[in-house]
Amino acid sequence: MSDIARLFGTRLPIVQAPMAGAQAGALAAAACEAGALGSLPCALLAPEAMRQELEVIRARTQAPLNVNFFCHVQPQADSTREARWRELLAPYYTEFGIDASRIPEGPGRLPFSVEAAEVLAAYKPPVVSFHFGLPPEDLIARVRAWGAKVVSSATTVEEARWLESRGVDAVIAQGLEAGGHRGMFLTDDLTTQSGTFTLLPQVVKAVRVPVIAAGGIADAAGVRAAMALGAAGVQVGTAFLLCPEATISAIHRAELVGPRAGHTALTNLFTGRPARGIVNRLMREAGPMQPLAPAFPLATAAIAPLRAKAEAAGHGEFSPLWSGQNASGCRAVAAAEVVRELARGFTP
Amino acid sequence: MSDIARLFGTRLPIVQAPMAGAQAGALAAAACEAGALGSLPCALLAPEAMRQELEVIRARTQAPLNVNFFCHVQPQADSTREARWRELLAPYYTEFGIDASRIPEGPGRLPFSVEAAEVLAAYKPPVVSFHFGLPPEDLIARVRAWGAKVVSSATTVEEARWLESRGVDAVIAQGLEAGGHRGMFLTDDLTTQSGTFTLLPQVVKAVRVPVIAAGGIADAAGVRAAMALGAAGVQVGTAFLLCPEATISAIHRAELVGPRAGHTALTNLFTGRPARGIVNRLMREAGPMQPLAPAFPLATAAIAPLRAKAEAAGHGEFSPLWSGQNASGCRAVAAAEVVRELARGFTP
Repeated sequence: MSDIARLFGTRLPIVQAPMAGAQAGALAAAACEAGALGSLPCALLAPEAMRQELEVIRARTQAPLNVNFFCHVQPQADSTREARWRELLAPYYTEFGIDASRIPEGPGRLPFSVEAAEVLAAYKPPVVSFHFGLPPEDLIARVRAWGAKVVSSATTVEEARWLESRGVDAVIAQGLEAGGHRGMFLTDDLTTQSGTFTLLPQVVKAVRVPVIAAGGIADAAGVRAAMALGAAGVQVGTAFLLCPEATISAIHRAELVGPRAGHTALTNLFTGRPARGIVNRLMREAGPMQPLAPAFPLATAAIAPLRAKAEAAGHGEFSPLWSGQNASGCRAVAAAEVVRELARGFTP
Repeated sequence: MSDIARLFGTRLPIVQAPMAGAQAGALAAAACEAGALGSLPCALLAPEAMRQELEVIRARTQAPLNVNFFCHVQPQADSTREARWRELLAPYYTEFGIDASRIPEGPGRLPFSVEAAEVLAAYKPPVVSFHFGLPPEDLIARVRAWGAKVVSSATTVEEARWLESRGVDAVIAQGLEAGGHRGMFLTDDLTTQSGTFTLLPQVVKAVRVPVIAAGGIADAAGVRAAMALGAAGVQVGTAFLLCPEATISAIHRAELVGPRAGHTALTNLFTGRPARGIVNRLMREAGPMQPLAPAFPLATAAIAPLRAKAEAAGHGEFSPLWSGQNASGCRAVAAAEVVRELARGFTP
């Protein structure tokens, strides 16, 4: 049994990657039941919604669960920057007939909080993972109180060392191929970000805690390659996106198997932080990286009505089409089948 | 024996990556003698210099050799762009006391040519590899005339298909981690470039010819991972840079084992095309990607005197410090020892 399976209490050293906005409890529960560590992404869940999803999962499985949180510091709104950002988007508002003056500002994503920890305490999930570093010590202490293992993502060797020095139980080495948000937190310089092939072995050499490989792993061959590079386990997201248990739109599903799926980019347009998704019209025309985008997660609000109108019109040109660089593992099969395929990577 | 070893007639399915400016015949010969396919990079060699290096190699080994060429189309000089480029560099000329009016323009890098093919014909190297696509058909026919196998680099699935359709014998899948020039030739959009972990298996699926993995492979574990992802062989460059047979400066050697080696970036400042090197002052201040840099390879001329002055002062802040994202394999050992380490990746 691998260190990671022992640490998490799972049958397999596979983490189903938490994907906020793309899944809820159903995917987590299915991955758990199949022997992986299922993950509930909580960044978009208010406490009551989180409780509901935890109930869904508890009703379906007793297997170990991971709950995942962003741990950014909510920025002050900057009205000048927001105004320039909306000015940049103005032609799109006109195109879609949106009254820009009526677009509400909104928080976008919630960082881990006392309230969230209080909801969790009733469920005692054995693993809590974080993105964008770690929350304050007192919040970590709350989840440690019920014995949870604490995990976070590193995108550089320095971040891995930082996490280890703060006592995490495992580090996720998030290669540049990964879909969704880069977990980077000690730097915002994208040139520091490297592929799984180089990040993983360098993180494995740099820290003593087990390292979970993420980024570009889509099938059993990817699992074998990650293990060859020293991983203690793997975290896989994109390959689960076509599963019936995922909650992405039909538009997003079609894109993942469409001709554009091979071309992703990091973009800050949808949230304010770089995240990898399939290149669409908004990314081509306004980005993919745009200095005017408000600080994470404030960029979200101004995009929301464009996304809604575009999706209502049947396309994803203004939607975050999160995907890793290797969507070839995406199949419309039950999550348990994806786990089985990945698990073949651990047998000789 | 692997397809690639059979194709090339080598003992091992390992290609010592051609590294123009960083090596000549001595490294190629040493790699050949150790059982790999050694490579002579010819992009910086005029015909007479190429002949000399081929003689050096012939004196040391009878094993199969690869000769490598760039196959760009030499651009027209653009005096307006050149002037703006030199204006951007003007503060550095002042700092180093360089009379900018006396900096010669120069070709920088030579594409494959009839003259080069004529020199080669006397030596009949069994493998000729190209970077930036392929040369015109009539030039390919010349190397085919002595039975040479033809190989080129792909940085996207589309490039791999393009190369296969033009009859290459093998494709090198060059992951984003690789040091030196990106081989990209059907696009200049850097967002199309992906890590070895995702590029390699997707190219393997897309073409029927054998695929050689490049980018981030630094040791036996990297070889194992590449083979798990479907590679028929590996191409390794950075790990040879500290070998006594390489010709890089003491400054470059020190950087490869120094604290900055972990941070590379793609930059077009040194030649006009994106190439990966260790981030230094010029890259931080003027790039790393700079729209004013002249078309490849014309950017070279204006940087040359800055590089010379800086190196004379003992530092590499204006030098191309080419390196992949994983310099951890760099050791000051004979090239044969690097080949032996990599070869361990093929034994169970």
